[in-house]
Amino acid sequence: MTRVTIADVALHAQVSRSAVSKVLRDAYGVSPSMRARVLAAIDELGYRPHVAARALRGHTSTLGVLLPDLRNPFFPDLVDGVVEEIAGTGYEVVISQGGRGPASESRAIHALIDQSVGGIVLVAPLSPQSDLEAIAATVPVVVLGRHDRSPRYDAVFDDDEVGAELVVEHLAGLGHRRIAHIAHRDSSRGEPATLLQAIRARAYERAMVRLGLGEHADIAWTTYTEEGGHKGVGELLSRPEPPTAIFAGADLAAIGALAALREAGLAVPDDVSVAGYDNSWLAALAHISLTSVDQSGVTMGRTAGRLLLERIGGRTASARISITPTLVPRRTTAAVS
Amino acid sequence: MTRVTIADVALHAQVSRSAVSKVLRDAYGVSPSMRARVLAAIDELGYRPHVAARALRGHTSTLGVLLPDLRNPFFPDLVDGVVEEIAGTGYEVVISQGGRGPASESRAIHALIDQSVGGIVLVAPLSPQSDLEAIAATVPVVVLGRHDRSPRYDAVFDDDEVGAELVVEHLAGLGHRRIAHIAHRDSSRGEPATLLQAIRARAYERAMVRLGLGEHADIAWTTYTEEGGHKGVGELLSRPEPPTAIFAGADLAAIGALAALREAGLAVPDDVSVAGYDNSWLAALAHISLTSVDQSGVTMGRTAGRLLLERIGGRTASARISITPTLVPRRTTAAVS
Repeated sequence: MTRVTIADVALHAQVSRSAVSKVLRDAYGVSPSMRARVLAAIDELGYRPHVAARALRGHTSTLGVLLPDLRNPFFPDLVDGVVEEIAGTGYEVVISQGGRGPASESRAIHALIDQSVGGIVLVAPLSPQSDLEAIAATVPVVVLGRHDRSPRYDAVFDDDEVGAELVVEHLAGLGHRRIAHIAHRDSSRGEPATLLQAIRARAYERAMVRLGLGEHADIAWTTYTEEGGHKGVGELLSRPEPPTAIFAGADLAAIGALAALREAGLAVPDDVSVAGYDNSWLAALAHISLTSVDQSGVTMGRTAGRLLLERIGGRTASARISITPTLVPRRTTAAVS
Repeated sequence: MTRVTIADVALHAQVSRSAVSKVLRDAYGVSPSMRARVLAAIDELGYRPHVAARALRGHTSTLGVLLPDLRNPFFPDLVDGVVEEIAGTGYEVVISQGGRGPASESRAIHALIDQSVGGIVLVAPLSPQSDLEAIAATVPVVVLGRHDRSPRYDAVFDDDEVGAELVVEHLAGLGHRRIAHIAHRDSSRGEPATLLQAIRARAYERAMVRLGLGEHADIAWTTYTEEGGHKGVGELLSRPEPPTAIFAGADLAAIGALAALREAGLAVPDDVSVAGYDNSWLAALAHISLTSVDQSGVTMGRTAGRLLLERIGGRTASARISITPTLVPRRTTAAVS
């Protein structure tokens, strides 16, 4: 494809090239109407300021990565993948924290955009698809961890349906019937159904039904945090028939679940089996040894980095890449007693 | 104090106000000599572009936090502290990863500066003080985790001498004499002596001597990572007289040490006691229950955030704040058998 230039934008907006340049530099002396005209032309033509132009002016070019938080031990794998993939391109990665709701997430994304990042990898964002598409109209975007189908941005995700099925089948294969799930729900305003946490919860329910365990399906809706896992176990143990196995939707929640079970005087895996998701380094620690689902975080990060570079290079057709996970059984799951 | 204005800079540099403005905006059409003159005047007068000017133009204002990496479980506490402190000021935090050496660290810092952050908190940077002072000449800087005395930037640090002493005294009090230390050394080019890892190692040695255990002092120089702790134990167990207690300079290294001891068939704390440093959430996990030193990460982060806002507000005199740590004994340390 032919690259859109400043000259194209100027022609389209019927302004001078220096006016386009002024808008791009956010310089003084640009009237609101001229700015609007130039931005409309940029949007319609899909113009991207060339990264080399920034480098020539002695600027470091950056790519942004939005993380929901800094505590989930799976996220550094994703960032490592992005960093590995962009090594040698002259880009540096900057990170912002989206936090627990769409409002703080939006502020974090705009902080990246306003710092003129060349593109953004959004990890499990909470914002509606329409908001993400508006962002993708101003900067190349790859969304990681959502199963979105969008004409405006790429999606890289783990096949969370397969992952959840692997866990339920593993636990059912060990003889468990009362298999509960600890799920994640951040916002009271309702999350996109394409979000990984929603997909894991639905796939868990479907797998339970398929295995004839539908009546035992039981979800504690908390969060994918240590605290959320702890709280989830509290809820589940208060049921008339508490579970003998718990599938936590993220390793961090599984860690919280392990602590809560210990406090309740229950042995893992003798009394209750616990499985997580992410196969983060935390799961692999000898002292934890958590059965988990490996979704190849570094590979996902690399894939997202590659797609982002392609978009910056001019690709506009959307890509959607699913990565198939595997189960890693460890010491926290065992046959029902 | 009176705030330095663009007019002051223009007068000092003997150029027009619009020339100063052009240099600040990094606009085209500025000669190298004019740029040099303006930057010199900015430096001499200590001029800081007003954050409100950016906000008026619809830009999000950001503060940068440099972290050595994203895996150390202590760092999110620091970031939380900074975020809490700046809440309501209109600033957003962006993070960059310094990595394992001064070269990648320098790139990460300049990525922040080039994105026009309003100020930077540097967590345990590896660069020499002179480099940090050059950075502090262009943007307000607070250094966290180094005991530097600089006229150009503020320093917030844990009293690492007290912390290391607390651990050695705790272990010696339990009857241990062969107490070894796992230390951190990143760069072959030599790290600043004011860096927390250097101070912890020296304080460990001094405490051993003071308690009459100088002949047993033994340091494995690896890194403050899980891998570093694992490797450190490998080294220490190969000594003619292996230690009965290990003080790892960071929780993450202690976690690696626990795994290595387990692999070697040694029980903790029955055969070997292990203590960490940072009292991160990892240390508090029921499955780990690591004796550690609490250096109040959130308080340190808040303090750094407050100092940074003060500098942005115009303070130029340097502050140096030491925070006193406490020991949190848990299940990984016990009386020598």
